[in-house]
Amino acid sequence: MSTYKIEVIIRNKKVARDPEGETIYKELIGRSSYASEIKGIRSGKWLLFEVEADSLETALKDVEKLCKDLRIFNPVVHEMEVRPYQGGSA
Amino acid sequence: MSTYKIEVIIRNKKVARDPEGETIYKELIGRSSYASEIKGIRSGKWLLFEVEADSLETALKDVEKLCKDLRIFNPVVHEMEVRPYQGGSA
Repeated sequence: MSTYKIEVIIRNKKVARDPEGETIYKELIGRSSYASEIKGIRSGKWLLFEVEADSLETALKDVEKLCKDLRIFNPVVHEMEVRPYQGGSA
Repeated sequence: MSTYKIEVIIRNKKVARDPEGETIYKELIGRSSYASEIKGIRSGKWLLFEVEADSLETALKDVEKLCKDLRIFNPVVHEMEVRPYQGGSA
């Protein structure tokens, strides 16, 4: 058994709107000197799971199953990405 | 000029607490059949920037500067990760 760090991104599907991203883009970036450089923003939720599992594959699969089972995301309006965390000291 | 997708994770520093992550961990995971497998959770905000820049390095640097300038995160309590987005069809 090893411990794996798995990160999950939950965001609105493209067919749903993304009011938070739109607001940051229009009202914050659009009024700043960065307006010409930034072409779009999407917002979402980030979760980092520390999982004890036999393999990375199992860890990824279990986190995906957990998020569905416990309704951490709503499959009707959200899409989810599950992947190994390769970042810093989190 | 190319378009780069840069993702930003903003989360509470470890010295600050993470009430959302703690609640998901204790109240949701802790009462489920996944309790023994999951050792911890951290929560945060995910933002995806579409940036027009000369190089990936410039794009990363500009997004980091933007987040500081426009106070998208609060350096006193938050830590930020800025990295190229390698995910799916976002």
